[in-house]
Amino acid sequence: MSLVVIGSVALDTVKTPFGEARDALGGSATFFSASASYHTQVRAVAVVGEDFPQQHLDFLSSRGVDLTGVSRVPGQTFRWSGEYGYDLNNAETRDTQLNVFASFKPVLPESYRDAEYVFLANIDPELQLEVVRQVRKPKLIACDTMNFWINGKREALLRTLKEVHLLVINEAEARQLGGEFSLVRAARAIHAMGPEILVVKRGEYGSMLFQRDDVCGIPAFPLEEVFDPTGAGDTFAGGLMGSLAKSGRLDRQSLGRAIATGTVMASFVVEKFSLDRMRNLTMAEIEDRYKTIRRMTHYEEWSDLHPPAKG
Amino acid sequence: MSLVVIGSVALDTVKTPFGEARDALGGSATFFSASASYHTQVRAVAVVGEDFPQQHLDFLSSRGVDLTGVSRVPGQTFRWSGEYGYDLNNAETRDTQLNVFASFKPVLPESYRDAEYVFLANIDPELQLEVVRQVRKPKLIACDTMNFWINGKREALLRTLKEVHLLVINEAEARQLGGEFSLVRAARAIHAMGPEILVVKRGEYGSMLFQRDDVCGIPAFPLEEVFDPTGAGDTFAGGLMGSLAKSGRLDRQSLGRAIATGTVMASFVVEKFSLDRMRNLTMAEIEDRYKTIRRMTHYEEWSDLHPPAKG
Repeated sequence: MSLVVIGSVALDTVKTPFGEARDALGGSATFFSASASYHTQVRAVAVVGEDFPQQHLDFLSSRGVDLTGVSRVPGQTFRWSGEYGYDLNNAETRDTQLNVFASFKPVLPESYRDAEYVFLANIDPELQLEVVRQVRKPKLIACDTMNFWINGKREALLRTLKEVHLLVINEAEARQLGGEFSLVRAARAIHAMGPEILVVKRGEYGSMLFQRDDVCGIPAFPLEEVFDPTGAGDTFAGGLMGSLAKSGRLDRQSLGRAIATGTVMASFVVEKFSLDRMRNLTMAEIEDRYKTIRRMTHYEEWSDLHPPAKG
Repeated sequence: MSLVVIGSVALDTVKTPFGEARDALGGSATFFSASASYHTQVRAVAVVGEDFPQQHLDFLSSRGVDLTGVSRVPGQTFRWSGEYGYDLNNAETRDTQLNVFASFKPVLPESYRDAEYVFLANIDPELQLEVVRQVRKPKLIACDTMNFWINGKREALLRTLKEVHLLVINEAEARQLGGEFSLVRAARAIHAMGPEILVVKRGEYGSMLFQRDDVCGIPAFPLEEVFDPTGAGDTFAGGLMGSLAKSGRLDRQSLGRAIATGTVMASFVVEKFSLDRMRNLTMAEIEDRYKTIRRMTHYEEWSDLHPPAKG
């Protein structure tokens, strides 16, 4: 089923202990789209400037991403520059130039408005709400957000969250938004704001999914080396939403498979700069890692060791 | 099969944001024994002073723990005092009085020397090695250690590790011992030191088990509130070793079940001060949480969503 994403398309300059990439393809909608494209049809809404290389759009088209909603306008493309230390968990932002993104007003092409799955990447919650109002019969609206909006636009964010079924955020942001140190309690507080499903991203520690009183937890894929974590969260969300849109189901088993798929997609993107790993990533590789991570968390039933007493 | 543990029996004074316990039952051998006692026969080796309350030994006896190897000697019992802040991940030690533990020389009673499963809790690696030399035909020797020994007695620790099959340590200590930030690489380095199985404790993020190139990862049990994390690591190890000793197997499925069992046991002990939660903990409660955590990490196979192409 079709999946719409709204977010940024950017040119990233990233420095890690292993090297540096300048003006590389980035942005939340980009990572999300490329990742989800392995699982379902994706339609993107974003804006780029006059300087944005056509080859990047061609790459997304080659992955089957519908770019009808990506407009090119006068000015420069959104640019982000950041640096990671050895722990690679947190980027230090060196520079942000919003450029054409500053006046971005998302308008869904008519052909997008029947989409059943919608992902609102981490942008101003007021813009997220405008998108919600443009889709006619959504089955699942998911969104991301960050500390900047939780602090600075809490009221607008709460209005958006009322319309959202699934929220996917970092652990610290879940605690901040929920106002509780305990994740179990924070999840309960967030459920009360609207989203019946909360996915908490924990970086190298994996992710947890809270669906009312049910919980699913998956470790990260154990990589020998993380090269560049930029875009890992959006790539995770792309795998998650792509899997859900493909299955059309929201039961606990399908949600578990969806976060495992997101985990696998993210494990690939961090192996190289930008989206480079996705330029030759195959479904066979994805399937192989999915099976590995599923085996990682599988073990025997209680009754195999503790047979029930004979009656 | 029988399981021997060597470690400390202590009186702990613990302060958390939720309250304070004075001279409460503690020590690595204590938490380990009580936890493992739910799964197999445990024999403890430790030392207490003249001041140690008989009721604490009676409690362990009531759990079926063999205390033949626990000697009472002149002097005061080992005392530890620590304080936790709200994140509850790390204790700040306020005071340590080794007392009778300072001159502890572990001697295994004759009846212990045929034990097949041995756990060397976190003590001086030279003492750990002395214990290894006293068991006749061990099937699995496991040990814990800490930054203090990794830094201060590295050569002795490496001699002990050569005799050890399974090492269970905290994440930071795995990185420190392995000399690698990447856990995958640290595990490989540690395998080369001797232990073919490495279990990494990650606190609220659960645990990972590395067995050569196979990996198992389990999240922590999602608790609404952690009351006092003292002893969680030893309680985890007790559940892990108790499960392995009960099953008598070391295959991947049994190892996965063992760390899940450890996870469940630890999730109970942190709900109250000291070992108080284990005074009335039932097997039915343990089984219930085991089933919950197993369900948490279970989700659909890849092929349920991606049927193989027809040939």
